[in-house]
Amino acid sequence: MWQLYQFPLCPFSRKVRLLLGEKGVGYDLVRESPWLRRDEFIDMNPAGQTPVMTDPERGLKPLMDSTAICEYLEETVEKAAMLNGSAAYRAETRRLVVWFDTHFFHDITAPLLHERMIKRIFTKETPDSKALREAMKAAVRHLDYTDYLLDHSNWMAGSTMSMADLAAAAQISVADYLGGIDWKNHEQTAKWYRGLKSRPSFRPLLSERMEGIAPPKHYDDVDF
Amino acid sequence: MWQLYQFPLCPFSRKVRLLLGEKGVGYDLVRESPWLRRDEFIDMNPAGQTPVMTDPERGLKPLMDSTAICEYLEETVEKAAMLNGSAAYRAETRRLVVWFDTHFFHDITAPLLHERMIKRIFTKETPDSKALREAMKAAVRHLDYTDYLLDHSNWMAGSTMSMADLAAAAQISVADYLGGIDWKNHEQTAKWYRGLKSRPSFRPLLSERMEGIAPPKHYDDVDF
Ligand SMILES: N[C@@H](CCC(=O)N[C@@H](CS)C(=O)NCC(=O)O)C(=O)O
Ligand SMILES: N[C@@H](CCC(=O)N[C@@H](CS)C(=O)NCC(=O)O)C(=O)O
Repeated sequence: MWQLYQFPLCPFSRKVRLLLGEKGVGYDLVRESPWLRRDEFIDMNPAGQTPVMTDPERGLKPLMDSTAICEYLEETVEKAAMLNGSAAYRAETRRLVVWFDTHFFHDITAPLLHERMIKRIFTKETPDSKALREAMKAAVRHLDYTDYLLDHSNWMAGSTMSMADLAAAAQISVADYLGGIDWKNHEQTAKWYRGLKSRPSFRPLLSERMEGIAPPKHYDDVDF
Repeated sequence: MWQLYQFPLCPFSRKVRLLLGEKGVGYDLVRESPWLRRDEFIDMNPAGQTPVMTDPERGLKPLMDSTAICEYLEETVEKAAMLNGSAAYRAETRRLVVWFDTHFFHDITAPLLHERMIKRIFTKETPDSKALREAMKAAVRHLDYTDYLLDHSNWMAGSTMSMADLAAAAQISVADYLGGIDWKNHEQTAKWYRGLKSRPSFRPLLSERMEGIAPPKHYDDVDF
């Protein structure tokens, strides 16, 4: 059985979990808090980051980096392929995955995690309200962009569901948990997100909680 | 013919150019300075980053993000495949590409570019010697890691040349141009790098210069 090293609000682990869920691949969760920089974890992943995926029974080398893990799953599990279509369609899909993994993460998810999770549970500092305001302004800008993408097609990369949707939903769901998303005026993205939230692959994520941090009421409501 | 938007010291463009060179795919260079944030360029790539690859004659949508571009080339050009072997080998290759593209870039190439290129040609500030010292210390740490990888096998990911080697060489070559690499005590990596430097795919990169910034003497010497 796969073991996934992660914590509930790691967006990159969520991306992998959504793909595992869509593909119907079972896995156990192993709790890892990368900010503690546990020696055994660094030995396994020199980058010191979650997610890492191992399969002790099969004696595989640990897999790490969420994109490398997702490409691996795409290559080894046929069901629910999320890198589809022409080479050009796949390039657009991968571009958008990078967009959500780096730009959305950098502008929104990372500062929210730092201000509202790391400071609460680790450094015990008070959140910086300017950084939070900036992240929430960036979220409006980013959802304007996803609205624009979804104005042109049903899914982020085009006419079929893809890794771009899973990457987007992973980031958005963490930002939403941390109160960073104002859904007003983003009806296109909200409609798309309602559809994703009602998928079985999403359910385990929505029911989990990070200790000491409560999500807003609408967070796990499929008809928010 | 492909057109590649880039500037001579962009490591991500170098990664793509090394792959194009290995595959024998022709392309024209289009000079783009992303720090100028040219409107037409942002319209093409909302991330505002180089590289972008287009083929106006074929009317393809522009390709962007170096990793998405390299995956596209791997899928469409059979010659000189750089994502090879088992799914696990490919996962290790992709993990290392991310390692060089994000960690090596963040710790070494990005600060060197900022202090020694952006400040010289754009903001006209003096470089921060503390930032430069940090980057050079990080380079020693990173080359210790590549020495360790190359102690175990001939190439970064294992027994065959792969995208991991091209990603590493792209970052190292820019850091070396900017005087950030001290080759002393890194014989394993130096030996590997000599081999790469003598490949025809590398030659166009080594002969190019960034205006106003001279590389150290050993930079384009294959037997440095
Ligand atoms: N490129 C990595 C990024 C993973 C990442 O940034 N993980 C965060 C948690 S959400 C982490 O472990 N941060 C700790 C650190 O960077 O030291 C991936 O896609 O898996
Ligand atoms: N993930 C991108 C990163 C590209 C990147 O960071 N390019 C730099 C030049 S080396 C850039 O355009 N920087 C300008 C900016 O980020 O605004 C890729 O792999 O292509």
